[in-house]
Amino acid sequence: MNPAPAQSEMRGTNRIFEEEVVLKGDFDALDRVYTADARILPPGAEMVSGREAIKGFWKAAVAAMGVTSGKLETVEAETAGDRIIEIGRAQLALGDGSQATVKYVVVWKREDGAWKWHIDVWNANA
Amino acid sequence: MNPAPAQSEMRGTNRIFEEEVVLKGDFDALDRVYTADARILPPGAEMVSGREAIKGFWKAAVAAMGVTSGKLETVEAETAGDRIIEIGRAQLALGDGSQATVKYVVVWKREDGAWKWHIDVWNANA
Repeated sequence: MNPAPAQSEMRGTNRIFEEEVVLKGDFDALDRVYTADARILPPGAEMVSGREAIKGFWKAAVAAMGVTSGKLETVEAETAGDRIIEIGRAQLALGDGSQATVKYVVVWKREDGAWKWHIDVWNANA
Repeated sequence: MNPAPAQSEMRGTNRIFEEEVVLKGDFDALDRVYTADARILPPGAEMVSGREAIKGFWKAAVAAMGVTSGKLETVEAETAGDRIIEIGRAQLALGDGSQATVKYVVVWKREDGAWKWHIDVWNANA
């Protein structure tokens, strides 16, 4: 399992996504969430490679879904070499008042002294 | 990157899934595909934990979707400690004659001398 300092840093990175990106709409804050060469595998779309392209994806996706808040929760995390592999769950509040539950796998990598999302794949529970 | 012997073994494991599980409907062959405590994160459902439960999932899913064939292709794979993290793509042929393209992340772990799927998460491109 990953040591406590990594867990605390991971929570910090997740808070940036929840608060600065989703709540405040600051998509440049994704610089502190994703590695420069990260990949995301979003449902209903092709894989997106590289942080700049990922910023564009999230800008469009948050607007399209009308996401008003998102809460991320680590279900489990294990260290593998210089990566941490996390299984997590996200609760999204959408513009129409509905909720969506999403599960995900994030492969974390350290970049510029911080743990960031390097591979991010998710899907909805329903 | 993972060494050639691992790549060759990974192809072998994927062939078991393609040929013995999907084509022949032998769901006990999943013993040689998934680790005993594997987890899958399927779209539209909760996470499924443990190989026996995973067998039940695939039995129902292959029947429900009418999957007649599936081809798995590694897009990239990197070693992380005693795991291999793979991004891949699958092409499924469905009972109604349509095709579906799926992308996935599989975290591989060695068990009983073979590389197997330990975490398996996927979603459709469209």
